[in-house]
Amino acid sequence: MKDNNELSGGSLLLAWQLKGKTVLIVGGGDVASGRIESILTADASIILISPNDGLHPRTKHFLEQYPTRITYKDRIFSGEQDLANIDMVLTAVDDVEASRAICQLCRQAKIPVNVADIPPSCDFYFGSQVRDGPLQIMISTNGQSPKLANIIRRRIEKCLPEHAGEAITKVGSLRNKLKERAPGVGGEVGKRRMRWMIDVCTAWEMEDLAALDDDMIARLIDDGWEKGRVPSGAEVGVPPKGPVAATGPGNLVPIATFVFGALCSAAFFTLRRR
Amino acid sequence: MKDNNELSGGSLLLAWQLKGKTVLIVGGGDVASGRIESILTADASIILISPNDGLHPRTKHFLEQYPTRITYKDRIFSGEQDLANIDMVLTAVDDVEASRAICQLCRQAKIPVNVADIPPSCDFYFGSQVRDGPLQIMISTNGQSPKLANIIRRRIEKCLPEHAGEAITKVGSLRNKLKERAPGVGGEVGKRRMRWMIDVCTAWEMEDLAALDDDMIARLIDDGWEKGRVPSGAEVGVPPKGPVAATGPGNLVPIATFVFGALCSAAFFTLRRR
Repeated sequence: MKDNNELSGGSLLLAWQLKGKTVLIVGGGDVASGRIESILTADASIILISPNDGLHPRTKHFLEQYPTRITYKDRIFSGEQDLANIDMVLTAVDDVEASRAICQLCRQAKIPVNVADIPPSCDFYFGSQVRDGPLQIMISTNGQSPKLANIIRRRIEKCLPEHAGEAITKVGSLRNKLKERAPGVGGEVGKRRMRWMIDVCTAWEMEDLAALDDDMIARLIDDGWEKGRVPSGAEVGVPPKGPVAATGPGNLVPIATFVFGALCSAAFFTLRRR
Repeated sequence: MKDNNELSGGSLLLAWQLKGKTVLIVGGGDVASGRIESILTADASIILISPNDGLHPRTKHFLEQYPTRITYKDRIFSGEQDLANIDMVLTAVDDVEASRAICQLCRQAKIPVNVADIPPSCDFYFGSQVRDGPLQIMISTNGQSPKLANIIRRRIEKCLPEHAGEAITKVGSLRNKLKERAPGVGGEVGKRRMRWMIDVCTAWEMEDLAALDDDMIARLIDDGWEKGRVPSGAEVGVPPKGPVAATGPGNLVPIATFVFGALCSAAFFTLRRR
């Protein structure tokens, strides 16, 4: 039984969908350039409002690289009319009063808003992020320590399975092909599809999933789904992994230790015999 | 220079703030019970609408445990009036048409909405989550493979530094105390504070940060911040870690290998002498 106090003190972590949406970014400095990158990643259009002399080199780079996705306005925020048809607002300017005023307008218009460095004016916070293709990971310390969030992010990057992003892409592709083969939303077939996908993901290594191509996916569905089983990677044509080298770095230490032990003992016997 | 195509295809990962907000959850089954847990964690009030015979045991448990935080209505969703003063809507019911209708009403009222299992009716998705106190991590595969998201979540749980949540709590506390000692938003003092906090987090091990108490935090500020330096853990009173055991499990294998080598060599010499 959980303690009543345990379920509190956090945020609701979400993957917000911005495809086809328009995001207003006010400010063009260092922080704003990071926001631009996040918003482009999420497939939204951007309206950027910032005087030209406040643009960070990275912001300028994005303006040059994505001229059709970013509409740039070389001026300061001018009021409510700047919020027409906007789905989200991110501000990153040094003027605290101006920031709070923008937040106020957004709240009236029910537009989600983030004001950099002023937590009470934020409907949501950002966190440290990892990305590998369709895989996205966010680390939030709920505003307590961005630096520790970064340290933890690097730790996570190191321990992520190799090919994780690729494996996810291929599993997504397998799932789509399976839906074509056995269509239907929900119900019995939906549950059976879900169970079989879980079985495949559990039985296979990330690396083997990542190696799937269209032919192998077809064979996996023919020999697996159709027969109610999970074939091995080899059965559908996943190339075998190279044999583990007998003298890989992992084996050198015990071998050296064994030899050292043998030499010590030999030296002992040799010296004793003299 | 990044490829133009690289910045696309993702979501915007966010830590949504719900303190003092009200979330409407429609449905009371298994999925809804998970939503209830996430929303309680984020400090929001909940209005739960679901006929009593559709309540999952976990949902019932939450209703009993959190009677003041969840307002329960034993009926189905009745229309626009149920959305009054609601800040977010999550639905998890089997009726696809009813779900889509609720989504439509939310979009008109500009209320963020998630409809379980119907991605086009979602303003945001959920992901696999890890929590350790103030530390929250979300793993999203952008809907491609929830199972792989779970496998990656377990991998991340294993590789997280021990005491990470505790370390973040203590660093948050250090930062608050530092702000009392050297107040001011932004400007030169703000930058100096940020730099010093980064230096402390970089120099100290997670375990030592987690061991900080109020007295040590006061000493860290007196002997560190005030003198423009970063004291060691020992200097402010963090107890030393126990010495690494000479025959810890990590050492047993090389010791055994050495002994085995010595014995083999001894046997060889002994046998040869006969």
